[in-house]
Amino acid sequence: MADQYKLFINGEWTDSEEKVEVLNKYTQDTYAEVAKAGEKEVDQAIEAAQTAFKTNPMPPYKRYQILKRVSELLQENKEELAKNITMEAGKPLKQARTEIDRATQTFELSAEEAKRIHGEGVPVEAAPGSENRMAFTIKVPVGVVGAISPFNFPINLVAHKIAPAIASGNAVVLKPASATPISALKLAELFEEAGLPKGFLNVVVGSGSTVGKQMMEDSRINLYTFTGSANVGLKLKQNTGLNKLILELGNNSPVIIDKEADVQMAAKNTAQKSFAFAGQVCISVQRLYVHEEVREEFQQAFIEAIQELNVGDPNDAETDVGPMISEEEAERAETWIKDAEKEGAKIIHGGKRNGALLEPTVLTNVTKNQKVVCEEIFAPVVSIIPFSNLKDCIDELNESQYGLQGGIFTQNIDTAFYAAKNVQVGGLMINDSSQYRVDLMPYGGVKGSGWGKEGPKYTIEDMTEERLVVMNLNQDV
Amino acid sequence: MADQYKLFINGEWTDSEEKVEVLNKYTQDTYAEVAKAGEKEVDQAIEAAQTAFKTNPMPPYKRYQILKRVSELLQENKEELAKNITMEAGKPLKQARTEIDRATQTFELSAEEAKRIHGEGVPVEAAPGSENRMAFTIKVPVGVVGAISPFNFPINLVAHKIAPAIASGNAVVLKPASATPISALKLAELFEEAGLPKGFLNVVVGSGSTVGKQMMEDSRINLYTFTGSANVGLKLKQNTGLNKLILELGNNSPVIIDKEADVQMAAKNTAQKSFAFAGQVCISVQRLYVHEEVREEFQQAFIEAIQELNVGDPNDAETDVGPMISEEEAERAETWIKDAEKEGAKIIHGGKRNGALLEPTVLTNVTKNQKVVCEEIFAPVVSIIPFSNLKDCIDELNESQYGLQGGIFTQNIDTAFYAAKNVQVGGLMINDSSQYRVDLMPYGGVKGSGWGKEGPKYTIEDMTEERLVVMNLNQDV
Amino acid sequence: MADQYKLFINGEWTDSEEKVEVLNKYTQDTYAEVAKAGEKEVDQAIEAAQTAFKTNPMPPYKRYQILKRVSELLQENKEELAKNITMEAGKPLKQARTEIDRATQTFELSAEEAKRIHGEGVPVEAAPGSENRMAFTIKVPVGVVGAISPFNFPINLVAHKIAPAIASGNAVVLKPASATPISALKLAELFEEAGLPKGFLNVVVGSGSTVGKQMMEDSRINLYTFTGSANVGLKLKQNTGLNKLILELGNNSPVIIDKEADVQMAAKNTAQKSFAFAGQVCISVQRLYVHEEVREEFQQAFIEAIQELNVGDPNDAETDVGPMISEEEAERAETWIKDAEKEGAKIIHGGKRNGALLEPTVLTNVTKNQKVVCEEIFAPVVSIIPFSNLKDCIDELNESQYGLQGGIFTQNIDTAFYAAKNVQVGGLMINDSSQYRVDLMPYGGVKGSGWGKEGPKYTIEDMTEERLVVMNLNQDV
Amino acid sequence: MADQYKLFINGEWTDSEEKVEVLNKYTQDTYAEVAKAGEKEVDQAIEAAQTAFKTNPMPPYKRYQILKRVSELLQENKEELAKNITMEAGKPLKQARTEIDRATQTFELSAEEAKRIHGEGVPVEAAPGSENRMAFTIKVPVGVVGAISPFNFPINLVAHKIAPAIASGNAVVLKPASATPISALKLAELFEEAGLPKGFLNVVVGSGSTVGKQMMEDSRINLYTFTGSANVGLKLKQNTGLNKLILELGNNSPVIIDKEADVQMAAKNTAQKSFAFAGQVCISVQRLYVHEEVREEFQQAFIEAIQELNVGDPNDAETDVGPMISEEEAERAETWIKDAEKEGAKIIHGGKRNGALLEPTVLTNVTKNQKVVCEEIFAPVVSIIPFSNLKDCIDELNESQYGLQGGIFTQNIDTAFYAAKNVQVGGLMINDSSQYRVDLMPYGGVKGSGWGKEGPKYTIEDMTEERLVVMNLNQDV
Repeated sequence: MADQYKLFINGEWTDSEEKVEVLNKYTQDTYAEVAKAGEKEVDQAIEAAQTAFKTNPMPPYKRYQILKRVSELLQENKEELAKNITMEAGKPLKQARTEIDRATQTFELSAEEAKRIHGEGVPVEAAPGSENRMAFTIKVPVGVVGAISPFNFPINLVAHKIAPAIASGNAVVLKPASATPISALKLAELFEEAGLPKGFLNVVVGSGSTVGKQMMEDSRINLYTFTGSANVGLKLKQNTGLNKLILELGNNSPVIIDKEADVQMAAKNTAQKSFAFAGQVCISVQRLYVHEEVREEFQQAFIEAIQELNVGDPNDAETDVGPMISEEEAERAETWIKDAEKEGAKIIHGGKRNGALLEPTVLTNVTKNQKVVCEEIFAPVVSIIPFSNLKDCIDELNESQYGLQGGIFTQNIDTAFYAAKNVQVGGLMINDSSQYRVDLMPYGGVKGSGWGKEGPKYTIEDMTEERLVVMNLNQDV
Repeated sequence: MADQYKLFINGEWTDSEEKVEVLNKYTQDTYAEVAKAGEKEVDQAIEAAQTAFKTNPMPPYKRYQILKRVSELLQENKEELAKNITMEAGKPLKQARTEIDRATQTFELSAEEAKRIHGEGVPVEAAPGSENRMAFTIKVPVGVVGAISPFNFPINLVAHKIAPAIASGNAVVLKPASATPISALKLAELFEEAGLPKGFLNVVVGSGSTVGKQMMEDSRINLYTFTGSANVGLKLKQNTGLNKLILELGNNSPVIIDKEADVQMAAKNTAQKSFAFAGQVCISVQRLYVHEEVREEFQQAFIEAIQELNVGDPNDAETDVGPMISEEEAERAETWIKDAEKEGAKIIHGGKRNGALLEPTVLTNVTKNQKVVCEEIFAPVVSIIPFSNLKDCIDELNESQYGLQGGIFTQNIDTAFYAAKNVQVGGLMINDSSQYRVDLMPYGGVKGSGWGKEGPKYTIEDMTEERLVVMNLNQDV
Repeated sequence: MADQYKLFINGEWTDSEEKVEVLNKYTQDTYAEVAKAGEKEVDQAIEAAQTAFKTNPMPPYKRYQILKRVSELLQENKEELAKNITMEAGKPLKQARTEIDRATQTFELSAEEAKRIHGEGVPVEAAPGSENRMAFTIKVPVGVVGAISPFNFPINLVAHKIAPAIASGNAVVLKPASATPISALKLAELFEEAGLPKGFLNVVVGSGSTVGKQMMEDSRINLYTFTGSANVGLKLKQNTGLNKLILELGNNSPVIIDKEADVQMAAKNTAQKSFAFAGQVCISVQRLYVHEEVREEFQQAFIEAIQELNVGDPNDAETDVGPMISEEEAERAETWIKDAEKEGAKIIHGGKRNGALLEPTVLTNVTKNQKVVCEEIFAPVVSIIPFSNLKDCIDELNESQYGLQGGIFTQNIDTAFYAAKNVQVGGLMINDSSQYRVDLMPYGGVKGSGWGKEGPKYTIEDMTEERLVVMNLNQDV
Repeated sequence: MADQYKLFINGEWTDSEEKVEVLNKYTQDTYAEVAKAGEKEVDQAIEAAQTAFKTNPMPPYKRYQILKRVSELLQENKEELAKNITMEAGKPLKQARTEIDRATQTFELSAEEAKRIHGEGVPVEAAPGSENRMAFTIKVPVGVVGAISPFNFPINLVAHKIAPAIASGNAVVLKPASATPISALKLAELFEEAGLPKGFLNVVVGSGSTVGKQMMEDSRINLYTFTGSANVGLKLKQNTGLNKLILELGNNSPVIIDKEADVQMAAKNTAQKSFAFAGQVCISVQRLYVHEEVREEFQQAFIEAIQELNVGDPNDAETDVGPMISEEEAERAETWIKDAEKEGAKIIHGGKRNGALLEPTVLTNVTKNQKVVCEEIFAPVVSIIPFSNLKDCIDELNESQYGLQGGIFTQNIDTAFYAAKNVQVGGLMINDSSQYRVDLMPYGGVKGSGWGKEGPKYTIEDMTEERLVVMNLNQDV
């Protein structure tokens, strides 16, 4: 029988009638069953969070201790947690292990940042007529954070929401992706072991259309943090009153291979970064803009590097590319490829699908209005687009509705910083692909790619309010 | 004949068929006629802004020079600008003069901040595996700013939008309040004189339901900055896609008079700050929470101080309280007062209305669900609410949907900082009323009072995007 | 036979001919013998540090790991380390335990700050003519840090020097106080266990006149960090060429008891903070300025609180006040007391000496030029000085050559912040004594009390150099 | 008869018996006579500064207004001030004009920074046991600043000292270089016109051995700021007790021409920046490290660019290179050149001297221990040093006792940032020479090049003390 999991509400493991079935994404067998949150459970979770926040504030050092302990527990349970990710997400084991290491960093950093929250002096005495004032700001938590997380990093993208939320003194209601809820529940177990007081973390499992919708409409939630599609992000913006938002949405990440690039290095790097977790990463390379002078050399080296990737069973520690999250998603991506093909695109590598497993696929001869180029494909599919003039290339790639991260490979300093100044993204990588991320850095997009930044230090800024305190002082003492 | 004004689009003064009539708010005569923007003009304005932004970026020092020049021109034209405010807004002349002085500060500060926009280093080399990286952020302008400004500070709340927008390198489309559009047009003249290149500032006059709506739906606008009601703020959030927002909305500002307050000082201060510009200030004192031990003394001193206020013709340089923006608005406020009276509230001062002129009004015996208490009254009306326990008092006043600014009068340091930590507002004034503002400070609310902060330094942060640049460096040189 | 200790040079435990004898400060018996560094050993230590720094740079995360591990080892070895402090310093055991807890914090914070060292953007493009530039700063370690530490916190004041030094990537040569060298050597053992590469920490034991002098004259040391007397601090400034300095020197800490103070609380607090470790703390209360209106009440409560202190054997876990560091030092303090007495001072508590043990002593009727007032007494001796006018009181206490920390007890916010603005110290405590310190805060004096700040974040700023990098960029790419 | 100038003490123009004769540096005729400060005048100046500081503090906005007005007056008097610099310093007129423009910036920036001085919050509540605390820092002026300025920028290096000093609320005693005192006195006139209260700026003229020495020994001066030789800097460090210091000392600036440089651009740039004001600039190019692959091309282009420089009468607006400050100095430089020649160096351009006028001189075949290489030559003399391996080149140039600024010309991003990380200087310019400076940037050296940074924002940090204020708050209110 499949493993059974309960909800985590107000410090209690809570069962419910209905269940969410979680599949082994490689075999498509049932892997586990999880209690499904109904209206009552969601309400209890929000109530618990609000009560915890209002009645039991945690001092910063205690938050530090709990989060630091969770970061240690992640390492102590690394193998088990990684295997669970591979099961419920279909993520190749070695990438799952990396995810645990990164989540460890996310918790460690959040713990440390809990001790560094502070305001700043405001020189009101420099305004005419305010010579006798003194002012500074303090940072206060927003209250209840509603977190909605995606399937692709079932631990680390949950970590990026709840660790900074706890670090800044908030209480959390978390709805993990219904495809991959178990990682979040296991994380709740670690929090319990680490001594988190009840109510500060509540995990409710269910679909966006029920649980998500209810959370969206409950005004006790003060801030929503969401990673997922631009469509859902927009809905959140429209339906959450005047509450605060952090949105990490899509991208169709561009990477430029300039004529002065180290082409071999660029080819190896981008081959790795285009297909990790079957391209289901927000900053996975999707659009490769290659200068005509080096296109042939690059294309050859790129294909060779792809051929060295191991495709198949994610449980195999050598696998680089495994299945997509579902057969439906793989079919969708296949359709986009075929649509492009009909309009003249050529598949120069891959293109075949077997169930949820789509081969690493490389297209050429694409045009800029094809979905494989202008939409987020979120699949192991990359298009090579030639260019001859860098400025024109950048103008074109900026036409995207998205702007999360991008990359450029070039040895030339002027070229590199022209790109830095002009590519409209939240992060531009020089001599690296768009897919570079370390957890301490500010991460977040512009345009349709979102609002606010992740990275514990930055998220904490968004999850606290800065209150100005001005003293009108009498010097006659 | 009334003065005639045109729109300012792409550096040209542009007429149109339809006109907006602007009244002298004290006499209710026609004061001026202004060209009304139709669909075409709004489109041209947005187009002009986008083109200016894309094709003619201004270096920081040039932005500084233009904004500094405007700040000087404000002083050179102070008397004329102040008189115009008095005419179109009904604001007492001395308060109008103060507004010009403050706008001078807003431009001066924005000019200076234009030279101080910078990113910061990001220690990516401290992440495991990233030892060879170096990273920093740069700040880039968002693009086209759509600004929608209110009637109550026709110069300075326009200044807080367009000066930081220009300072950070953006182009602006401004829709001023249709009741008071002339100040904005006069400001555009000063910009023209100061040498602003065409297209960077465009002023379109018209109603929210036409011009405002069109702006809201035009995706070429990258960021909206709005001051006004929570209702309209919410609409903007819901109808502007994933674009960025700065919202400065309402408040029903609370001020606490503690038992250890300097009661006489508190009474004089709050009497001034409850009725300035007929209470039509976002942070005007509305709820006076007075400790029972000092209530009698306070109430008497407060009424005495009100009696010293000059009420009447705003053109008189001695006037403290003039008309409200319209008779309709005065009637609305009167209705709220009467509703409260029916439920037992007592008017202990004022309460009478003559056209748009409502007397400074003080209520007691109110209850917390009456509109005069729980909604933003935006009129010269204040309620005295007694309390005996500070913590309970703060819990109660925090029930408001708003949280812009508040104040506390107390000599006790523990009491003062208990309030600072616990009153849920964007700014808490110690020994001053909620209505303290200098233009350099961060200004903005929590909860239903808005998003983002004004104050040039802070607005610039919101009007720029922080882009991360990471270099993957090879040390084998 | 007494325990034997060796020097720690280039990762090796190194013996030498001559020995330093370390006494049990309570019994004055020999407690241990430590190898004494000669000219050769000091030279080797500096050489080792320079070589480690130049040839084996540690990336930030590795520094983090080592320092975090040391902080854990401090807790694992807490009891042993505390007992050693009691032995070699005569510090009461409970204060020694507190010191280990604080050192744990110092290492933990330093570890974390190692991951947060970063520069900032510099807006050179805002200078006329520099529109095409981009600039930022990076922080680089200074190189070899020469640390000279005092006897009074044999672990934590060593920690405040070497933990930030290692955190910022420097190598260290440490000369601990010759009265208390064993704590430093034990700390070196913990570093060794934590995996510090050889050469990054070197401990050389000996007197200031030999080892200290040699360090001072060796130009391979790039920065000196010293805690001790103003005299020695001045010598360091004069004899270290143009090298950098951090100096934490003396103080005769003033605390004000205002007429609006919570007198009972103030009396208890200051009684504790005047005599901890026999007053041998840089920020020990020495001058108590008490308002005449509350003087009698304060004095009585103060004496009562002192009578509750346990005086005697530092090994006893209940002891509050133990011996001074040496009989000579106790005699010196006794002389100062007697000198004051001759000039009219009255001893209202204590005053007797038994070997190195001097009773908690309270003086009244002192004058401002007596050594007990104007010099740093560094003994369990405090003077009560009455005042009637706060401003005059502050003017008088500011006459001190020192300015490390001070305190004021008052409930009045105006009084509190008048003191904050006007008392010339590095840190002013409101409703606490001068002796408040947590390890994360900036700590350091003005005037003759020193240069630079301690607190890991702040020390790291002083132990790194900020290098500006400006790129002259060509936009024709 | 020569113009007569008086001292500026306590707001009065004060004459004295003795005079300092100021020469026209081109003709060596007497240009002016200036009152020479004796012991009495220096004492009065310091007394006046201390009294002004203690009794008449200026609020920030007033400091802003005065400094801003001085910046305007500099432009209004630009031509006169520039001509005076040319006279007393022998600086070519166009460079003198540039200096006035830069000083305008220095004052403008200082004025603006006066309004931006603020502390920051300190999260003491994150320390175990301090949960009830709240803390922040405030910045207070140091008091009396003693400024000693050099001859080479008689206006702008005075500006970098006194403008930030006034901006931060200090009072100043200035001793300008005795060769060029008139610029400083004219600046004092502008301050007077701008309304500076008496005592905040005092100018005393005289030699270092009398006036400088007296200032050094007067303990009423709280901070010394000095630009000049390393020798005098060291003396200041040794003889000013524990007072604070800002030292801007010498350099023998290195610039690297890499094999991937834009050689033509590099040659033109460095030719300009090696000989401006006859090389008497702290960051004048002195050591040109040229990669062997491009050496020939560079050398030819460099000599050609030098030949286009106009050498001669500094009063001529076309002149690029004029006389040195004195014949003695020109003779000293000539001797260094000849010494190098004797040891095998070759003069490939210039080398001849006519009075104080030394031709732009280029040496090759130098060795690293010759004075022309390892000492600061402060003359129009540059050495070309070939290299073949970049890392070795950087190791070698780092052997210098100095480290102010350096430059590298290269198009390769890895090379550029290898240099940025490894060249031991305060500022490294990529694709520009060492001589790049704008007044807003942090400017200052490492090693023997000094302590502290100039640039108004940075100097203000050094000229204020950061005081921590901690509140111990009782939540039972």
